[in-house]
This record gives sequence, C-alpha cells and structure tokens, in this order.
Amino acid sequence: MSISAPTAASAAATTSTPRQPAWHQPAPKAEVPVLKIYNSLTRQKEVFTPANGRQVTWYNCGPTVYDAAHIGHARLYMTVDVLRRVLEEYFGYDVLLVMNITDIDDKIILRARQTYLFDQFRNQHVESGKGLTDDVREQVTELWKTYVARTFGDAAAHAWPKFYTKAVMEQTGDLVVDAKRVLKLKQAAAAYDALQQHAKVQSVEALETVLAASRDIIATALDVNLGHTVTDQQVFRDFAAFWEDDFLKDMDGLGVRAPDVLTRVSEFVPEIITFVEQIVANGYAYEADGSVYFDTRAFHANPNHHYAKLEPWSVNSEALLAEGEGDLSTNLTHRKRAPADFALWKKSKTGEPFWPSPWGNGRPGWHIECSVMASAVTGTQLDLHSGGIDLAFPHHDNEIAQSEAHFGCDQWVNYFMHVGHLHVEGQKMSKSLKNFFSVKDALQQYKPSTLRMMYLQQHWQGGMDFKAATAQEAMAAEATLRNFATNVRALLADYRANPPAFTGAHDFRKGEADLLAHLQSSQARVHAALCDNLHTPAAMDALLDLVSKTNVYLRNVEAAKQHANAYLVAKVAKYVTRMTKIFGLTEQGAEIGYGFPESDAESAAAGGASRDEVVLPYVQALSKFRDDVRAAARTGGSDLATTVLKLSDQVRDDVLPDLGVALDDRDGGRALVKLVDPAQLRAERAEKKAREATKPAAKAEAARKAAVKKLERLYKGRFSPKDLFKGDEYGKTDADGVPTHDAKGEELPKARRKKLAKEFDAQRKLHDEYLAAIKEGKIDWAPLRDEYAAKGEKLDV
Amino acid sequence: MSISAPTAASAAATTSTPRQPAWHQPAPKAEVPVLKIYNSLTRQKEVFTPANGRQVTWYNCGPTVYDAAHIGHARLYMTVDVLRRVLEEYFGYDVLLVMNITDIDDKIILRARQTYLFDQFRNQHVESGKGLTDDVREQVTELWKTYVARTFGDAAAHAWPKFYTKAVMEQTGDLVVDAKRVLKLKQAAAAYDALQQHAKVQSVEALETVLAASRDIIATALDVNLGHTVTDQQVFRDFAAFWEDDFLKDMDGLGVRAPDVLTRVSEFVPEIITFVEQIVANGYAYEADGSVYFDTRAFHANPNHHYAKLEPWSVNSEALLAEGEGDLSTNLTHRKRAPADFALWKKSKTGEPFWPSPWGNGRPGWHIECSVMASAVTGTQLDLHSGGIDLAFPHHDNEIAQSEAHFGCDQWVNYFMHVGHLHVEGQKMSKSLKNFFSVKDALQQYKPSTLRMMYLQQHWQGGMDFKAATAQEAMAAEATLRNFATNVRALLADYRANPPAFTGAHDFRKGEADLLAHLQSSQARVHAALCDNLHTPAAMDALLDLVSKTNVYLRNVEAAKQHANAYLVAKVAKYVTRMTKIFGLTEQGAEIGYGFPESDAESAAAGGASRDEVVLPYVQALSKFRDDVRAAARTGGSDLATTVLKLSDQVRDDVLPDLGVALDDRDGGRALVKLVDPAQLRAERAEKKAREATKPAAKAEAARKAAVKKLERLYKGRFSPKDLFKGDEYGKTDADGVPTHDAKGEELPKARRKKLAKEFDAQRKLHDEYLAAIKEGKIDWAPLRDEYAAKGEKLDV
Repeated sequence: MSISAPTAASAAATTSTPRQPAWHQPAPKAEVPVLKIYNSLTRQKEVFTPANGRQVTWYNCGPTVYDAAHIGHARLYMTVDVLRRVLEEYFGYDVLLVMNITDIDDKIILRARQTYLFDQFRNQHVESGKGLTDDVREQVTELWKTYVARTFGDAAAHAWPKFYTKAVMEQTGDLVVDAKRVLKLKQAAAAYDALQQHAKVQSVEALETVLAASRDIIATALDVNLGHTVTDQQVFRDFAAFWEDDFLKDMDGLGVRAPDVLTRVSEFVPEIITFVEQIVANGYAYEADGSVYFDTRAFHANPNHHYAKLEPWSVNSEALLAEGEGDLSTNLTHRKRAPADFALWKKSKTGEPFWPSPWGNGRPGWHIECSVMASAVTGTQLDLHSGGIDLAFPHHDNEIAQSEAHFGCDQWVNYFMHVGHLHVEGQKMSKSLKNFFSVKDALQQYKPSTLRMMYLQQHWQGGMDFKAATAQEAMAAEATLRNFATNVRALLADYRANPPAFTGAHDFRKGEADLLAHLQSSQARVHAALCDNLHTPAAMDALLDLVSKTNVYLRNVEAAKQHANAYLVAKVAKYVTRMTKIFGLTEQGAEIGYGFPESDAESAAAGGASRDEVVLPYVQALSKFRDDVRAAARTGGSDLATTVLKLSDQVRDDVLPDLGVALDDRDGGRALVKLVDPAQLRAERAEKKAREATKPAAKAEAARKAAVKKLERLYKGRFSPKDLFKGDEYGKTDADGVPTHDAKGEELPKARRKKLAKEFDAQRKLHDEYLAAIKEGKIDWAPLRDEYAAKGEKLDV
Repeated sequence: MSISAPTAASAAATTSTPRQPAWHQPAPKAEVPVLKIYNSLTRQKEVFTPANGRQVTWYNCGPTVYDAAHIGHARLYMTVDVLRRVLEEYFGYDVLLVMNITDIDDKIILRARQTYLFDQFRNQHVESGKGLTDDVREQVTELWKTYVARTFGDAAAHAWPKFYTKAVMEQTGDLVVDAKRVLKLKQAAAAYDALQQHAKVQSVEALETVLAASRDIIATALDVNLGHTVTDQQVFRDFAAFWEDDFLKDMDGLGVRAPDVLTRVSEFVPEIITFVEQIVANGYAYEADGSVYFDTRAFHANPNHHYAKLEPWSVNSEALLAEGEGDLSTNLTHRKRAPADFALWKKSKTGEPFWPSPWGNGRPGWHIECSVMASAVTGTQLDLHSGGIDLAFPHHDNEIAQSEAHFGCDQWVNYFMHVGHLHVEGQKMSKSLKNFFSVKDALQQYKPSTLRMMYLQQHWQGGMDFKAATAQEAMAAEATLRNFATNVRALLADYRANPPAFTGAHDFRKGEADLLAHLQSSQARVHAALCDNLHTPAAMDALLDLVSKTNVYLRNVEAAKQHANAYLVAKVAKYVTRMTKIFGLTEQGAEIGYGFPESDAESAAAGGASRDEVVLPYVQALSKFRDDVRAAARTGGSDLATTVLKLSDQVRDDVLPDLGVALDDRDGGRALVKLVDPAQLRAERAEKKAREATKPAAKAEAARKAAVKKLERLYKGRFSPKDLFKGDEYGKTDADGVPTHDAKGEELPKARRKKLAKEFDAQRKLHDEYLAAIKEGKIDWAPLRDEYAAKGEKLDV
C-alpha cells in the first residue's frame, strides 16, 4: 500500500502546501438502538455486552433423552435457533453455542429399565406362541394389581370399577384436574377392560391386544418387582442413544442448526467428579451415605454468594425441590442438612447405572452436568445461558450456585434467557387431553418453515398458544412472502428480457422515493425490534408491511402504465429475503425467494435431474399449442381469430398452471411470466373453478332457502293466537284468550302473564300475515313440503 | 406475552417476597475495535458514524461509457463491491448504493462522432466494391496528413519517415515515456506503411487492410473535418447505450452486484438545470456565452465554504484543470473569471448533443451530474462517496463545492474513499505498452473468483500491481480454501455415515480446546482487520492461517488414530465459508464450500441452477409465441392464417434451435419434439443455410471466381521480368535487368537491391507459367475480360 500524498499533519509542516479544511465527526441524527435482552437475573431488559469483544459464549440446556420430542421442545430449540441466527447473522456476533445431551437421569433409568423388562416379558410370551393362556392372564392381572395398589392405594384394586368411576368423577367434576392422575386412571381402566374382554380368548392376537392396552402398567409393575435385576449398563446406554438419535433427527427435520459443541453427560463423568471434589474442597458440599449434596446454607451464608438468584421466592417450594431431585431419589430428607440442598453425586442402587468415584459407585446429579460441561468448553464464565422457563428453579439456580461455588466467582452467567411455555389451544399440552403433538406429528401437518414462522411470530419470552389461528396466520404470512418473491423474480426476468425503451425520463420518481423511504424506515423498524429484546414478531410485522407497501407501489406503477424501477424493487426483495434467510425461513442460496424448494420439478432441477426431464414438459406445452394454432390456421375460416384466442386462454389456464407457470396477460399484449409452485397454482385454479361452478347452483340454493324461510313463517302463522294456549296447562284467560290462571286455578305471576301476552301478540302478527297471504292466494307450499319430506315429516296444510 | 412472576422492583415492594441479588453490567475484557475508514477529507482513519442509525447512503462514481472496461475499472468496481458486501453483511449496515452511468461527456461525443463518421466512410467505399481506387487512396492520404499535422505539427506530415524515426528515438531513449504520444506515433506509422504497401493494389482486400491500419487516424481526421455535420442525437444515444450495456455485462461477468439505484445522466437533465439555477441564484455561478461556470473564488471567499477540500494543493495544476474540463472545451480562459472555475453547463456547438435550457441549447458539465443524481436519491447529505483516486481533483472537489454551494451546507460528504490505482507488472497500463487488459481479456484468463481474490488481497486504498505473482498467490489461496471445504465436507459425510462408537470419552480434548481458541482468536483478528479501514488482505490472511491450523489439527487427530470433533471442524469451516460468502468469493447457497460451481454437472449437483434459470427460457419462448399469435388474431384481417403459419415457422427455425429444441413437423400435424445440444443445432442450421445459399448459382459463381483468380495470375505474368524496371526511376541494371543504380546514377542501397531482386524472381515465375499456358494454347480470357468490363476496364491481351 502506498499513499504518496501528504497527510493533513505533514502538509501543515510545509508552509507552501495548502491544508485541508477542518472536518467534523458526524453525529447520528437520533439515538441508534442497541441490543437489549430481558435477563432473568434482573427480570428486566439489559444492554447486551459480551465479555470478550464480538465473542458470545452461550450454553443452552439440551434434552433429557427418554421419549420423542414434542412441539413444546420444538418451541424451545427452534426459538433458540432463530435467536442464535439473529445474533450471528444480523448482529454479527461470533457465537459459540454449546448444548448438552442429558443421557444420565432418573427418568431415563426408569424408562430404560421398564422398556427393557416389558420387552423381555412380551417377547417371552409372544415367542411361546401359546397366546393369552390362563397363566399369562394371571401374571398380567397380578401386575395390574401391583400397579393399581402402588398408584392408587391397596383398596383401589379390590373395588376397581366403582373406585374408577368415583375417582374420575371427582377429578373431572373439579376445575383443577390432575391430568397425570386422570391419565393413569384411564390407562388402568383400559388395561382392566382389555383383560375382561379377552377373559375367554387365548389367541396370540388377544395376547397382543391385552399387552398393548397394558403396556405402561406392565412395564411399571415389572420395574417395581424386577428393576433391581437390571444390571447390564448397556441397557441404559442403548436406550439413551436411541432417543438421542431420534431427537437429532427431529431437529434436522425442523431445520434447527446443530450446536457448535454437543456434549454428552456420560462422556464427562471424570470431569464431573473432579468438579464436585472442588466444591467439597471449597466447603460448599458434603458427602452423606455415598452421595454428595450441595450445602445451600453454607453457600448462601458467604456474603459473596447468593443461593437462588433467579427465583429466591421459590426456595421453599417442596414440589419444585422434589422435582429437581428426580424420581429415584425420594425420602432423602434425613440425609440432607437443609431441604433446599440438592444432590451433586448420587449413590447408585442396584438396577441403576454407576461409575466409580471417591464416594463409591454412583452417578452425577442432574444439575451438576450443565455446570461441568459448559465450563469444560467455555471456561469460567458464560455470556448467555438459555433454557425453558420451567427449568429456572431449581435447575438453573442450582447450576449457578454450583459453578460459583466451584470457581469462587459472583456472576458465572451474565445473561439468563428463559423461553416461555407452549400451550395448545389455550390448554397445557398433555397426552390425557389428547392435545399432545410430537415433532413428527407437527411435521406431518406443517412445513418446517410454517412451524418456524409460528414460533417466531410469538415473542420468545412469552407463553405461546399453539392453535389453528396461529397456524393460519403463519401460513398467510408465508403466502405473502412467497408470492412477493415470485412476482419480483418474474418482474426482473421480464425487465432483463425486455428492457424498457429509453425515453429521456428516469425512473426515480415520487413513487420510487416513497418506496425507498418505506424501505429505510422498515429497516430501522426491524433493527429497533430486534434490539428490543430480540422481538421477532415485531420485526416480521415490519417486513410484511414493507411487502404490502411494495405491492401497492407495483400496482400503482402498473395502473399508471409505467415501468417499475427494477433495481429498487429488487433491493426491497433482496432485503426481505436476507431477513427471512437470517430467520432460517428461506434457503441460503436464494437471492430473492421465500422458503425451501419442495415441488418435484423444483427439487429435480436442484437435484441434478437431467435437463431433458426438467425442460421437456415446457417444450411439449409449447409444441402442442403451436400444433393447435397451425391446424386452426390451415383450416382457416372466418372464426380463426376467435379460435386462436381461445387456444391462447386454454394454454394459460389449463396447461401451464400444472407446470408451475402463471401467465398474467397485461395491457400492451406482452404477458408477464411467473414461475410458481405448481401445487399452489393448482389449488388456486381449483378454488376459482369451484367458485365459478357453484355460482348458479348457489344462487338457486340461496333463493330456495329464502323461500323456505318465508314459508316457515307463514306456516307458523296458520294457527290463530287464540289456539295458542289451549291444553291442560292453563285455566282462566282474559278477553283475548291470554291465560291469567293456571290449570289449578292459581293466578299466574305477573312476569309470566307478560311473557304469554308477548307470545300472543307475536302469533297474532304471524297469523295476520298468513291470512293476508291466503287471501292473495299466492302461497306455494312446495319448497317447504320438500324440506319437511327430506326430514321425513309432513306439512299439515 | 405474559410474564407472571414479579419483577425485582415489584418484588421489593412486597416485603414477604425475597429479592433477586444485585447484578452488574458486564465490562468487556479489552477494548472492542470499531470500524474506522481512511477518509480522503482528513487523510487519516476516522471512526465511521452514519448520520442515520444503521442506514448508509453511498454514492460511487460510475463509468463514462465510450469503450470496453479494463482491469483498472474492474479493480474499482470489484473493490467497491467487496467493501459494500462487508459493510452490509459483516457490519450489518443497511447500505444504499447509488451509481451513475455517465452517458453525456466530451469523450463520448468525440468517440460517437468518430465511430459514426468512420463507419460511414468505410461502408461507402467498401460497398462500392471498387476496392482501393486512386481516389480512395487519395482521400485516406489526405486524412492521414490532416491527422499528423494536427497531432505532431505541419512539418511532421511532410518529412514523415524521418520525423517518425527521430520522434520515436527521442521518446524511447528517455526513461520517462509519453505513452500516449508513442501510441499515436506508432499508429500513424502503421497507417503510412499500409498505404505505401498497397500503393499499386486496388482490391477490396487492400482497402480493408488500409482502413484497418488507419482506423483511429481516419476517424480522428474525419471528425476534425465533419464532426459538426453529425446532428442526429440518436448517434450519441446509441453509442452510449452500446457501451453501457457492455459495461453492465462485464460487471455481471465479474460477479459485481448491481447498485441499488443506477442513474443515467441523460435522464436527469431537467434536474441538473434546476440544480445549476439554484447555484446561480445562491451567487456561486455565472453565465458566460451560453455556458454556466462555477465561481470558485466567490465560493471560497465565504467563510463557511472551502474550495478543493480534498486536494487544496492541486488547485493550480493546469493539467488537472484542463482534464477536468474535457476534450471539447479548450481555450475557455477568456470566458472564466478564474482558472479554477469550471463548467456546470456547456453551450453545445453543432455536432454535439444538446438540451434546451435557460442559457440556450447546451449540455451538463461533467462534475454537476454526480452532485445532482446523488442528491436526487439520497437527499442533502451522503455518508460515503467513493471513486478512483484519479478523480479526487478536480472532479470530486468540484462535486463537493457544487453540492455545498447548492445546499448551503458545510459537509455534504462525510467520508470520501478513494480506491488506489492499478498497475500491470509495475507499469502503468497502456495500449502502447501492450500490457492492456480488458475485463473480457482478464476473464478469458482467470475465473471471476480469482480476480476477486487478487483484488481483495490488496488493500483498497493502496496502489495495486496486477502481475503474474499476484495471480499465483490468489490461486494458491483459492486452492487452499477449496481443498479445505472439500475435505471437511467429506469428513462430515463420513461422520454421518459412520458415527464413531461410544467409548465413554468425549471429543473435546486439548486439541479441540486449542482449535476453538484458534477459531476465536482468528475471528477477533478478522474483526480487527475489517474494523481497521476495511483491511481485507489482513482478514484473508487470518482466514488462511485458521485453515492451516485446522489442517494441522486434522493431521494430528489422524496421526493419533482419533476421531476428529466433527461439530467443531464444521464450525470452523462454516465460519470460513461465511466470510468468503461475504467477500463474494463463494456461492450463497454453500454452507461449507468455496467458489462457484463451474461445469453444468457441478452446478446441477450443487443445486446452483435453480428451476427458474433452467426452465425460464423455454417458457419465455412459449409466451412470446403466444403473444405474437394473439396480437395477430386481435388485428384480424384476411391474411391471419398466413401470419400464424409464418410465426410458427419462425419459432421453430429461429428461436427453439438456440434452446436446443428441434421441432420436426410431420404429417398429421403433430410435431416431433427433440432436445439436442444447442451448439449442434446452431451448426446444423448454419450449414443448411450455407448449403441452400450456395446450391447451383453459388457453385457456378465459385467456379467463376476460381477461374478469374487463375487468369489474374496468368495475366500478371504476361510481362517478362526484364520489362519490370523500365521507366524513369532506375538507371543501370545488372545482367538480368535488375536495377543497381537510380536514375540519377547513384547506387541503390543494399536492402533496396535485395527487394528488387525478389520482385524480379517473382515475376520470372509468373512469366514462366504464362508462357507455358500459351504454349498449351488453353487460355480462355473470357471470365477475366468480363470481370474487367464490369469495372469499366479492358484487358490488354
């Protein structure tokens, strides 16, 4: 690099050289927003400052792998995925995202054993080929009893059907439903019923049916009886590996990017032991009966430390504390110094996986893993930690306490983000409420981009309601963005193929200046929204507004028979595309586009199908059209022009849409060519046809309905009001015939008499109309008669 | 969004609820670099602060379109393209880039007229078919003389060969070469030689040769004589449009993104007039003889203004001032109040394009356009202005002065960036030095990504040497990045296909921790480099270092027979890919990759060719055909059938073959569709046309031409070589009859004698052939006689 001219300073030194004049540093016209994030540690929005330049270290609590992921999990991981992309690609941070797979956990141990024991039980009996023998039925019945006694008490099994009816009534009669208990009751009932129904059938099918209905019950009861016999460590490893794989595949299906570092608890046990030893050495943990517990009181007593920074008000919640300790760790109270103390290391009972340690064979507690693995990768401090809101206490508070106890620091995590809960149609998602959707269920119903749009149209921090209306809104937004991209691409292709003629006038007119101003204010809105606690819904609103304004511009230009400013429209479309790419809604390769390619034609083109396969249908359409037009021209005749125009409409309406081509005929005679998803075009065409098809029929139907309605009114009026109150119910009437007393001779209450008088008046009105119509002789009862006939009734006129 | 838990503040209000402990805002460990840009207005790096939040308004001086773009232009536009992408995609600014096309300019006017006049001259004489007649030779000689006299003085034409030898020796003997003068000398010499060599040849070929050798000279001289007769405005428009199109295609070829708004001067003339009127009204410009000049002294005298902010030391440079005023505006001194004053509006002489204005017919000055068009789009201030360093004075200084005079502001441009010059192998690029490369030349030799890598490995601000070593370095960097991407992709595919077996040990070992640290420090290095005046070479160095360190990691892991940490390696590769995508070196769709797909197979496999790109040409062909047929049908008329059939033939013969489609019309009216290689179809079509054209008539014509050619040779041979040198010119001869002395008795120089001997030998050979033919008695002179008769001449045999 060579800069030969003098600098201002050196120029000043030489008196003969004139100096550059003063320059002033520009000042921004208005305050430029900076990124603020709602920090659970202060429960307010804080300016986001990473500790190390542009680096952001981020730990996100990953899944405990014992079942298929559901849309509540999807919300967490997809939302984190969106926020991560925004931090990286919008704000330009160099993010390091670490996530764990929890593959050692009480739930996993239980489920792994249960699954293993049930499979063993099932295989043994199914493979014998004898079917539902008395012996098997006996065993299943015993297991059922064990389960019910364990779950609902000894009496329940004896007095089952009655107990069940009463329990369900008690549960559902109340507004506050213990969903888990209801589910267990129903499962037990289903198993009971299956056993009753197959009391006298021995077939293999009967065996399969009973086992299927009793799966969870048998598994649970077998574990109660035989759990301690499962000593093969591989049982636990294989079970966790299966669900880990399943989870990662679901995330792939959702388009969630893999974390930068993925850690498995089972691979960090030595580091966990060392970490726990350090906490013990620092005086914040103690061993009791082969387990190690965190000493919350000792920790909290240190003025530099504070236990439960996130939710100090939850420290006494027994339910939360119990949940934090896991399903296999009940009745530990006598070993703990304080109720809030929690296990760092758990002694393993037989039938549980174990690792050797200074405290004997055991396994890590739930909370310690995250402290250890996050620190192993990111060091002594985290910029960001995230997870579901349900993990805030005790899990995350324990994590913080452990890490600060280990490092002797006072702010291990700088920003803690908790993603809100997901509900389904306003209710907590639960298998018993039948509103439970696995990720796979959701992907059957929605495209990944639709799910992503649904999630990002909700603010990450708030609760989210997963409902039909949300999905509709997301799909509408997607259609808007997709159509916009298609239109702009078509416009640009057209501009390139047919550049506008030179007129001497430029195309940066008032409309374009306004559009540019819209673009700039939208960009500022998007920036402000993302700075304001990563408010993706507000950012998406701004993008949709911008698209709508650009569509208005395009319509205005067309109405004025002007050429659209292709450069400017392309700029808008590229900006919108860039943002949807950042959100993960659009494939990275698109310069102007929305979503991911789906249709066969598209994927064929992208997937290396030969040019012939891709291109041939289009060429055939052209050739066919040409054939038809030629044939018409050869036949000649006076109506040739009509024929040609009809053929032109046909190729546009009937042929090209199936190929994903929309031709928009425009003034000036040059059609605009659009390439769109064939499925979308087909749907549009079907809808249009349906609308057109129903036109006359629907009109007739509406007329018939109106006639029937009118006739019904007349039909009602066939009685005189005086006939209204005949019968056993009433006694005396007034002059008109409105009852004043009931059949027993008691006077009717005032309100009642008022009501009856009203009915009387109404009927009088109807009857008058009826009489007038009769008089005119105009009543044709046919439509009403047909209506009644269709219901199997007859008119009595 | 619902946050149900209490905030810290509200929690504090309720004494019963424990409060969250204090949290402290994190402080960055070290100062985080911010973007600084070298500002030509201060000649030092300044913190970059846009006036309006994240918006950056940027005007880049575009091309004056009168010739093909060369690699010097490529350096400017590609460098600006890289910097723009970095501002947008790395720093996240919302950039608005405006660029102009200068299509009104002295150089364009001259070239357009010259090209037009030369083409006219050439066509007139070539079409006559008479070849290089004495009359034409006379005309060319006169034009040559006009040119030489104009360029080198009157004496030069008279004493040409001597003058030339002397002038060239003077020039090349000195180290400081006036390259333009040498080029002009060489051109004049080449034209002179061509004329001498064809002194006695009248063929059309001779004419073409002489015209080709004299092109620039004839064009220049014709313009001197006839420039004022070119009054058709379309001549200027068409010429500029041609080179604008050529420029935009070159930019496409280089992968330079289109600006957001592209403005043409010829479309902004009304705005320019209004702008100039305002400057006059503000007292900073004056009219003189139909032109308007900027009053630099009045402007500079105002304490709020300063003329020549960029290069105050250049204000007295006559050469720069003259260049700034253009080739058609010499000798204006008497009209200007001060030498530094410059034209805002130029009175148009005849033979120049013009627009009506308050000052009579005229055209915009060069500098004013940029002020007007930048302001029309971006308003009263620019964040950034860029251009080549050669434009700093007077062009950019005048732009600043005009705009500040117009708006009454004191800092119209906040940051002025000047991209450094390009040299080739250490020398200034020049046609005379044969080191001149057009963009098209460069793209023949290098891939666009290689050129881009060459440019971005040089700092934008410094001079750049375009040389073989630079290209080698760029290609080596490209190979490193490409191989790395390929390797990592293979590694990941292998990881997915064969996930490593569970061992209980994790793969975040010391090697991985080191690699992560390398990644993080590389990211910091890249950030620091880009913040430091957009130092792309330093950023690229950091990326290449990171790749090299990752390769070392991969080798170490392999040597230790361990599995590489696929997540972490993927992270490095994604980061490197992201950066090369930002630089425009890699296709946007790649997650891990380098460069752009090249062969069709690759692009199909990589998904590079979208369905749109593949299919659109076919659909457009169909749509165009349909448009035409519809238009015909709407017009109606008795010959509709004929029109339709003609259109059908056209689409088959002229449109589809280029798309690789052959339609075979068959009996029955259904054409057979064939997809073939377009090149093959084009060749077939050309051959067919050639065949049809030549069939019987052309065969006869070819035979006749062959006969005439043979006869001409015989005819030339009718003289004996001894008759060759008879006449006044020569004196004594040797034995054969070859002259040794001239008419004055002086001995001829050796070279001359050698040449004459050669001519003698050639004629002997021809004469021998002639004598042999006569002997055979086979000569039929008829074809040659007819040929001569057609030219009005007679054979003398």
